[in-house]
Amino acid sequence: MNLKSVNLTMLVDFYELTMAHGYFENGMEDQIAYFDMFFRRVPDEGGFAIMAGLEQLIEYLKHLEFTDEDIEYLRSKQLFSEGFLTYLKNFKFACDIYAIPEGTPIFPNEPILTVRGPIIQAQFIETMILLSINHQSLIATKSNRIVRAANGRPVLELGARRAQGADGAILGARAAYIGGCKGTACTISDRDFNVPALGTMAHSWVQTFDSEYEAFKKYAELYPENCTLLVDTYNTLKSGVPNAIKVFKEILIPKGYKPGAIRIDSGDAAYLSKKARKLLDEAGLHETKIVISNSLDEYIIKDLLIQNAPIDSFGVGERLITSKTEPVFGGVYKIVAVEKEGQMIPKIKISNNIEKITNPGSKQVYRLYDRDTQKAIADVITLAHEKIDDTKPYTIFDPEHTWKRKEITNFIARPLLAPIFLNGELVYTSPTLEEIVTYSKEQIDMLWEEVLRFEKPHRYYVDLSEELWTLKTELLEKYSK
Amino acid sequence: MNLKSVNLTMLVDFYELTMAHGYFENGMEDQIAYFDMFFRRVPDEGGFAIMAGLEQLIEYLKHLEFTDEDIEYLRSKQLFSEGFLTYLKNFKFACDIYAIPEGTPIFPNEPILTVRGPIIQAQFIETMILLSINHQSLIATKSNRIVRAANGRPVLELGARRAQGADGAILGARAAYIGGCKGTACTISDRDFNVPALGTMAHSWVQTFDSEYEAFKKYAELYPENCTLLVDTYNTLKSGVPNAIKVFKEILIPKGYKPGAIRIDSGDAAYLSKKARKLLDEAGLHETKIVISNSLDEYIIKDLLIQNAPIDSFGVGERLITSKTEPVFGGVYKIVAVEKEGQMIPKIKISNNIEKITNPGSKQVYRLYDRDTQKAIADVITLAHEKIDDTKPYTIFDPEHTWKRKEITNFIARPLLAPIFLNGELVYTSPTLEEIVTYSKEQIDMLWEEVLRFEKPHRYYVDLSEELWTLKTELLEKYSK
Repeated sequence: MNLKSVNLTMLVDFYELTMAHGYFENGMEDQIAYFDMFFRRVPDEGGFAIMAGLEQLIEYLKHLEFTDEDIEYLRSKQLFSEGFLTYLKNFKFACDIYAIPEGTPIFPNEPILTVRGPIIQAQFIETMILLSINHQSLIATKSNRIVRAANGRPVLELGARRAQGADGAILGARAAYIGGCKGTACTISDRDFNVPALGTMAHSWVQTFDSEYEAFKKYAELYPENCTLLVDTYNTLKSGVPNAIKVFKEILIPKGYKPGAIRIDSGDAAYLSKKARKLLDEAGLHETKIVISNSLDEYIIKDLLIQNAPIDSFGVGERLITSKTEPVFGGVYKIVAVEKEGQMIPKIKISNNIEKITNPGSKQVYRLYDRDTQKAIADVITLAHEKIDDTKPYTIFDPEHTWKRKEITNFIARPLLAPIFLNGELVYTSPTLEEIVTYSKEQIDMLWEEVLRFEKPHRYYVDLSEELWTLKTELLEKYSK
Repeated sequence: MNLKSVNLTMLVDFYELTMAHGYFENGMEDQIAYFDMFFRRVPDEGGFAIMAGLEQLIEYLKHLEFTDEDIEYLRSKQLFSEGFLTYLKNFKFACDIYAIPEGTPIFPNEPILTVRGPIIQAQFIETMILLSINHQSLIATKSNRIVRAANGRPVLELGARRAQGADGAILGARAAYIGGCKGTACTISDRDFNVPALGTMAHSWVQTFDSEYEAFKKYAELYPENCTLLVDTYNTLKSGVPNAIKVFKEILIPKGYKPGAIRIDSGDAAYLSKKARKLLDEAGLHETKIVISNSLDEYIIKDLLIQNAPIDSFGVGERLITSKTEPVFGGVYKIVAVEKEGQMIPKIKISNNIEKITNPGSKQVYRLYDRDTQKAIADVITLAHEKIDDTKPYTIFDPEHTWKRKEITNFIARPLLAPIFLNGELVYTSPTLEEIVTYSKEQIDMLWEEVLRFEKPHRYYVDLSEELWTLKTELLEKYSK
C-alpha cells in the first residue's frame, strides 16, 4: 500500500460542508468564485519562504471522491438535504488552479496558489490546500535555513520519532530535502519519494554487545563502507573515540576502506568535536569525519561554526521536523472575487486588523530579474489579465508609501503562477524531486544576499500593479463608508 | 478507505534496519532485549503530561508486515543479505508490550511503555512507538492546558489547516479530545474516531452574498439550531453584531429557536467581546453566546478571563494542533536489559549529560493514592518482579537526595503498565474514546492542585524502589571505573 493513494476527501473543516450545503440550498452551486492562498509573514523572521507541498495537494485533488461510507456518515449528522448528498456523491472536480511551483522562494502577501471554480468546490478544498502547502512550505523553509547555516556541510534529517504524526515524518522528510538536506533517516520517504535514506547505529547497538569495542568491530566488519560509529554511549573521549580509532585501524584501513566517521549525540558539541578531532589526527586519521546530532538547529549550528568546531556534517531531528522555533506556516485562503452574469465582482475583507485586509480580484505574480546580475529585483502582483512587458521600462511602487517609486529597466519578467488544473483536469506534470531541488537552489541563488541574511534580512519588494492598487483603494473606500 | 488500515511498516528510521541486519548477521536474531519508553520533561514547564497515541500504535503493530515491494526496495539498497530479507518477509511480531493506558497523567523519567522481545523486533518498532506516543501525548497535554485555562468554557479544536500533515490534523483532533476539547472542525476525525465535528461559516460566506445581513439571514434560515454567525468580516461592532442581532430577532426568535451565538475571529478579543456583550444585552439577547477564535492558547485565554472578557467558548487552532509554544514531546526509547542464557543482564547508558542516564532493568510503575483523599501521592518505579503491598507502610525516598524519606500509610498502590501484547498477541481491548476522556478527567482530578498549577507547579514525586535504586547505583559505579 502506498500512502499517496489514501483518499483524504473527508479531511475537511466541517464548516466547508455547512457552507457548501448552504450554497446548494440557495441555488448557488454554479456560482463561480475566486480564492487566493497567501501568507502574511516568513517564519523565524526570515527573508523568504520556500513553496512546497504542491505534489501532495495534486494527489489529494485527483482523488477527491465521496464514498458511500462518507455519504452515510454525513447523512447521520442530520444536517444536510438529500439533494446535497446526491450532489456530493456525483461530485466532479471542475476548478482552475494555478500555483507557484515547488522550490520557488515565496514572499508574504503574494498569491502562491489561486482557485477559480464553483463556490462549493473552491470552498471545499480550502482545508487541504492550506494543510498541504502550509506544512511542507514550513519544513522546506526551516530546512533551508539550517542548510544555509551549515554552510556547505551536509545536513541529514533525523526527526521521524518527534514528528507530529506519520505524514509529519514522511512528507516532512520530502520537504526537508527540497530545502537542501542531503538525506533522511525515514525509510518510507526513500521508498515513496526517493529521498535518500541513511542510518547507522543507536546507543542500544553499543549496549547490546559485551563491550563498546566489540560493538564497533562487529559493525565495521558488516558495514566497512561509510562506517559511522556512535561514540558517546559510555564516555566519548576516554572510551568511544579510542575504540573507534582502534576499529578503524584494525578493520577498515587494512581492507582499503576510508577511515569512516564518528557520531557524537550528547555533551558539548564544540568541546567534544575539537577534542575528538585532536585524538583522530594524532592517530593519523585525518580523513575520519565527525558527525554531530544533538538538538541542533540553525542557531546552534551557526554558533558551533563561529567557534570553529571541526564538524563535517550535521544530523538534525526534532527542531527541523517540527520547525520547533516556529512550528506554524500561517498560509490563509481568502475569497477575492465572485462572478455575476459573467462579470467578475472583486471582493475584499476589511477586518479589525489592518494586516488581515486582502487584495481583491483574480491575479498573477511576476518576478522581475535584473538581466545583467540575474538577481530578483521585486515581485509584482497584477490582475490576471495584465501582462508585464519586459521590453519596456516598468515602474514599481510601494503600495503603502506610494511616493516610493522606482523605474526598472533591463529586466526579465517571469510569471510565477502556473496552471495546475483547468476545469478540473490536471494539466501540470510535477517535476521530479531532484528537479525541484536543483530548481530551488538556482532560484535561491538569484536572491540578493541581503534577503538571505538570518538576522533582519532586507524586506524583498512585493508590489501591486497600478491597476490592482487602484482597484483595492476604491474597494477600501467603498466599504469604509 | 480508512486511514487506520494503512501499512506503515516502512515508517522506520533506517538505522533500525542496519542494526537489525547486523544482529541477524551476528546470529543474534533470538537475542532477547528489553526497552523502555520514557520522557525527560513536561512541555511548557507543566506539572504533568497525558498519555495518548496507544490505540494507533496498536494498529501499526497489528499491521506490521513487509510487502514484496518493501523487500524489493530494501534489496535495491545493496546493503542487506538475502537471509535477512527472507527473515523480514517471514517477520512475525513476537514482543511483549506493556503500556500506561491513554488518558493517564504521566511524569518524567517513568517508563510509559516497555518492550521485551527479540532484539531485531524490539529495536525495529522504536520509530513508530516514539512517533505515535510523542505526537498524541504532546497534543493531549497541550489541549488539557488550554481546557483548564478556559475553566469550564467549552474549547473546540480548529487547527487542521495549520497541522503538520494529515495525521497531525486527524490524530491531533483525537488527542485534543482526550485532553478535554469538546469537539473539532476536522470532519474525518469524527467519521473515523467519533470526535464530534462542528462548523458554521467562514468570512467567504459573508463576502459571497451581496450584504452581510443577507449572508446571515440565509444561514439562519438553513441552520436555525445553534446558529453561530461570524461578525468580523467588515466591522464587528458597527456592522457584524447589529446584523446578527437583527437576524436572530427576525429569524430565530419568532420560530422559537435559541438566539444563537456570534463568533469574533480578529481584533482585540477582550474589548470586542465586552462591547458585543453590551450590544447583545441591550437588544435583550442575554442568552446569545460569544465565541472567540483568534490565535488563542492557554496563556491568552487565562489573560482574557482575568480581564473578565464575557466569552462563552473558545475555538483554538494552530497553537493547539502544533502545540506551538513547545511543539516536541521528547519521549525516548532506551535499552534497559538483555537476556543471556535465560538471565536478565540490566543495561545502563551513562552519557556526558547526567539527565540522559537511564534506569536499568525490566520495570513496573506504581501510583500510590491516599485512601482518604483519593489523591495521587507519588509514583514508584520498581523492578518488574516487585510488588508494592499497600496493606503495609511503604517508604519512598528521593533517588538523588536519598536522606529525603517518607513513610506512606493508608494508601492504594495501582500498577500503571498494563499488558498490551504478549508474545506478539494483542491481549488488550482499547477503551472507546469517550471512556478514555472520562478516565482521564478522573485521573487528573486525583492530582493535587499544586501539580495542576500552570506556573511553577509542584514536582510530583517519581521515585525508585530500593531494589531498583541499588541496581542503578551498582551499575553506575561499575561503568564509571
